[in-house]
Amino acid sequence: MDEIVSLCKRRGFIFPGSEVYGGLAGTWDFGPLGVMLKRNIENSFWQTFVESRTDMYGVDAAIIMNPKVWEASGHVATFADPLVEDLVNRKRYRLDHLLEEAGFSVQGLTFDAMCDIMKREGLKSPDGNALGEARMFNMMFSTHVGPVVDDTSVAYLRPETAQGIFTNYKNVVDTLYPDLPFGLAQIGKAFRNEISPRDFVFRSREFNQMEIEYFCDPNDWERLFEEWLAAYHKWLLGLGLDATKIHDLEVPAEDRAHYSKRTVDIEFDYPIGRKELMGIAYRTDFDLQNIQRVSGKNMEYTIKGTNKKLVPHVIEPSIGVERLMMAVMCSAYMREIEVGGDNSTAGSSNAPAGGAAKAGRVVLKLPEFLAPYRFCVSPLLKNKPELVAKAREVFAGLKKKYGNVAWDDNGNIGKRYAKQDEIGTPKCIVIDFDTLEDGTVTVRNRDDASQIRVAISEL
Amino acid sequence: MDEIVSLCKRRGFIFPGSEVYGGLAGTWDFGPLGVMLKRNIENSFWQTFVESRTDMYGVDAAIIMNPKVWEASGHVATFADPLVEDLVNRKRYRLDHLLEEAGFSVQGLTFDAMCDIMKREGLKSPDGNALGEARMFNMMFSTHVGPVVDDTSVAYLRPETAQGIFTNYKNVVDTLYPDLPFGLAQIGKAFRNEISPRDFVFRSREFNQMEIEYFCDPNDWERLFEEWLAAYHKWLLGLGLDATKIHDLEVPAEDRAHYSKRTVDIEFDYPIGRKELMGIAYRTDFDLQNIQRVSGKNMEYTIKGTNKKLVPHVIEPSIGVERLMMAVMCSAYMREIEVGGDNSTAGSSNAPAGGAAKAGRVVLKLPEFLAPYRFCVSPLLKNKPELVAKAREVFAGLKKKYGNVAWDDNGNIGKRYAKQDEIGTPKCIVIDFDTLEDGTVTVRNRDDASQIRVAISEL
Repeated sequence: MDEIVSLCKRRGFIFPGSEVYGGLAGTWDFGPLGVMLKRNIENSFWQTFVESRTDMYGVDAAIIMNPKVWEASGHVATFADPLVEDLVNRKRYRLDHLLEEAGFSVQGLTFDAMCDIMKREGLKSPDGNALGEARMFNMMFSTHVGPVVDDTSVAYLRPETAQGIFTNYKNVVDTLYPDLPFGLAQIGKAFRNEISPRDFVFRSREFNQMEIEYFCDPNDWERLFEEWLAAYHKWLLGLGLDATKIHDLEVPAEDRAHYSKRTVDIEFDYPIGRKELMGIAYRTDFDLQNIQRVSGKNMEYTIKGTNKKLVPHVIEPSIGVERLMMAVMCSAYMREIEVGGDNSTAGSSNAPAGGAAKAGRVVLKLPEFLAPYRFCVSPLLKNKPELVAKAREVFAGLKKKYGNVAWDDNGNIGKRYAKQDEIGTPKCIVIDFDTLEDGTVTVRNRDDASQIRVAISEL
Repeated sequence: MDEIVSLCKRRGFIFPGSEVYGGLAGTWDFGPLGVMLKRNIENSFWQTFVESRTDMYGVDAAIIMNPKVWEASGHVATFADPLVEDLVNRKRYRLDHLLEEAGFSVQGLTFDAMCDIMKREGLKSPDGNALGEARMFNMMFSTHVGPVVDDTSVAYLRPETAQGIFTNYKNVVDTLYPDLPFGLAQIGKAFRNEISPRDFVFRSREFNQMEIEYFCDPNDWERLFEEWLAAYHKWLLGLGLDATKIHDLEVPAEDRAHYSKRTVDIEFDYPIGRKELMGIAYRTDFDLQNIQRVSGKNMEYTIKGTNKKLVPHVIEPSIGVERLMMAVMCSAYMREIEVGGDNSTAGSSNAPAGGAAKAGRVVLKLPEFLAPYRFCVSPLLKNKPELVAKAREVFAGLKKKYGNVAWDDNGNIGKRYAKQDEIGTPKCIVIDFDTLEDGTVTVRNRDDASQIRVAISEL
């Protein structure tokens, strides 16, 4: 994990948020390479699950919504984590995390049950100090809308994009009246005031979600759930995720939200352990019924060509952009090791630390459609104007055709290859003196470092 | 304007935010059609100003930043509007807006000067009531990060994306070290706690910006300013904006920010009047010097191949997505009028209201690359399975090739054309009985309602 965090910073994928001012815990900024990778991931999501389907539509709701949204959804009452404070140094922790780290299972435990264990076992803080009383802490960021600061002006930053979809269900039915089943997708920011943000972008206070609410006849949910689960597996594999590190977890009833009849978490073996990458939840008609109750508006859908009305049930596939980007980078990241003179390739987590193995090149083996740059173009030597001119010409042609093409004339050619390997550029194209003679260039392949000569016209 | 707002709601472009709960003033949600148009506009920006250039990079910073960002930028001290309250009904207004509506020019006026006019003239509220004392109201939304609510945990939602770029300038120079001049672009949300949001999405509390900070040698700013101004004009015209409605306003010194040596506002003749669409400002080294002073970090750039160091100067082209979308829709919106039996086309603002003219079709003449749907495919009759099957086949083929293709089999063919005209679909393709005989379809053109027959293989 440290190697990937370091790569992200060193090569401009992800920087700590507000770093120039000493940072702000739990926030991260995407640098130029990160923006490109993020755009490619989001575009793949949109192309796969919205544009290429006939039953899907996009929405893009405001982040600040009427607070009734969060009363109806239950977030005001229950979207909270158990908070405890070290009585000596005032550091704050999540009680469930402290219990887990002390070896207790907190699955399915109520807040009171966690407090009981804490007291019974005399749980201490990680610094060995006494802990104060635990309390539930609501994770929604709050603010005030308009010039008056009082209870009537409170609003929240959305802790999930999902409710921005549910609140627009009726708008979409009233305007487009799509056939049932249909789905609404949204990509956007969500905010959670985490007590202890940690693990790089895995648990941050501001993050991006890609959520789908798929509205269906309640009789169809089991079949459709399986279809969505399969569709996501296929997509994740296409993004290059290591199949052996993906695991479905059927969430047991006691750990599911009370309204959900089935939830599958798709977990991924990150370097920090097996963690939730995404979830698919059957949410019944819980959300639309809440909206109907609180708003007084009818949420029924009339099946076309009939008088049959129903409040649709919902299947929700939900994934965080940053968690997915981490899984993509962890799957693509390779540090080659030399064993007995051979170059063999191994994921960093398998690479022996030290010993006889010599640290080899670092390669980000991203699928071509995800790589920030598709090609890098270089003149062999920077101080030969005729090479530079020819290289600029090749660069301009590829850039016009592909857009995401890098130019690199810094350092020697080996350093350039090393840099492009690290940022995942599939092909490096080098213009040398032979190019001026015969119009061919060296095309060097990222994954096996092999080189071939290709005519410029055939690039 | 009312017609466009109505179209946006009726056809699923833009809905009032949180509408199902009675709304939340100053927030708007994009529906399915709006998401498509917004994506097309944002992608055009990115393609034009980032991907197709060799001097531009993207960043994507967190919305919640360290509060020092807004102290250094001056926003904590001065990003405020003059607020007055109706003493009877407690409605709140911007004093500058009330003065403008009462016929005073507020250009260049200080807060104290506005208060003086208000008192001298005995200004009343729009409801005719007395007004209280004016005060400056800071427009940044504030929140608290972490579990403790006190002064040390205050943070703000960014009121502009620009500072998220400046705070990453050093990260980018340290990692990518691009040649000077270079620019950083960001698309993202910004938040302003407007006292009186109004004019549809023109002045809302949450909106999307597309900002560029272009870092350059101070000797080059005048030439580069002209280049950026020309580049934006070219782009705006390419988006279909009516050239006669675009106006450059050289902002006079007394209305410019104190550090700016030149600012050009590009204004657009909206139905609500001539308003600021975007701005290009020469910000000198004001922002980087502020960061250097407050953070203590060196913001100098070393010119490559020399020992010359300088803090770059900045040109900032800044545009709001929603204001641009409004200008695009206002330019594309046409309501045809019948005059003496002829169909002639006129922008809605020119169309005579009532009189002899009969209300004709409404057409959104968007450029093809911006239209939410490129094609709509229909069977002539919905109840003829052989027509529907053939139409589905044509639809699937086009959808695979183009992605954004609509299917419509509702109502009669005239109603379908009317709907597709309203949402700006350039071509409607209709499968009829002749199709089954000879493999040709009707292709109906949005702009002039002309129809031709084309072989399916040549679509």
